[in-house]
Amino acid sequence: MHNAEPLENLADQFARFPGVGRKGAVRMAYEVMSMSNEQAMELARAIQDAKTKLHRCRLCQDYTTSELCPICASQKRDRTVICVVEAPRDIKAIERTHEYNGLYHVLHGLISPMDGIGADQLCVKELLARLDGTVKEVIMATSPTVEGEATAMYLAKLIKPLGIKTTRLAYGLPVGSSLEYADETTLYRAMEGRGEM
Amino acid sequence: MHNAEPLENLADQFARFPGVGRKGAVRMAYEVMSMSNEQAMELARAIQDAKTKLHRCRLCQDYTTSELCPICASQKRDRTVICVVEAPRDIKAIERTHEYNGLYHVLHGLISPMDGIGADQLCVKELLARLDGTVKEVIMATSPTVEGEATAMYLAKLIKPLGIKTTRLAYGLPVGSSLEYADETTLYRAMEGRGEM
Repeated sequence: MHNAEPLENLADQFARFPGVGRKGAVRMAYEVMSMSNEQAMELARAIQDAKTKLHRCRLCQDYTTSELCPICASQKRDRTVICVVEAPRDIKAIERTHEYNGLYHVLHGLISPMDGIGADQLCVKELLARLDGTVKEVIMATSPTVEGEATAMYLAKLIKPLGIKTTRLAYGLPVGSSLEYADETTLYRAMEGRGEM
Repeated sequence: MHNAEPLENLADQFARFPGVGRKGAVRMAYEVMSMSNEQAMELARAIQDAKTKLHRCRLCQDYTTSELCPICASQKRDRTVICVVEAPRDIKAIERTHEYNGLYHVLHGLISPMDGIGADQLCVKELLARLDGTVKEVIMATSPTVEGEATAMYLAKLIKPLGIKTTRLAYGLPVGSSLEYADETTLYRAMEGRGEM
């Protein structure tokens, strides 16, 4: 009806993003049309750049432009601890706490039999290859979900026999939340993990 | 910290879209990274295609790949009525009702002194150029907002003196809504515009 297949096509492309519905995708496509030509070309170039210039760090598998990411290349980081996360965005979240000074390892996913994702599709062997004797502790920082738990358990079973300490992030009440709204499991875990004041 | 400027840059680009916050933009950038190379290049190409292949219809100013959009080019549409809308997406919304068979005109914006947008930045002269004697009615289908009203009023003042009937979409209760939740102004307008059963 609209003779505007390039627009439809663009909306289809945007609709692929998680959290972007059909209406949002159409809105984004129209937004591209109302951009200046330079702005639109800049956006297209940014996509191409990200895909061509970035690749995975040889050690931690985070995205980087060089062979090693700045964290893996840094001499200031504690090389005896590796924090295992699901995705690169989790590294950013942990770095924002300024509390952790070790290295990271990105799995690029979680074990999820429902979605047909097994351990062989994650960066597990890259992690095992890093456990060369320098590493004294591996922290499982996957999400407290079924998949996150299953992945942490699976990895712990592989790593513990190597004589390396394997830890898990603490469960408990989110800071600033109201106890009243905490679900039973969280409250149970918070009680279980209580510490002396 | 992350040595991933191409990723930051891409997130900046996505953050430009209305309704996409910083977190959403970062998520989208990571999503691009997890796409296959072909998928990412397809997305970049879709953006370039939309901007290069589409332009405004010579008459109604909607986006199209040809000189005239299919609606303006159609012999089946009633050429005596023009429905004035803010944006191309509004045409789609009205077409979905299958109730209107006239032509359209896209203003590409609304008068908004607060944002410094005056009538000269909208496609107003293109509309006036179309009022050549064939057109008997102009329907103002801008949104029932302050800017939509102001724009409709402004255009009506220009068009009425030409002896052309100028109408406005009806105000009233949205179908399927609960009267209880209707705001006073809507209810007042619904009462005012009541029709015989």
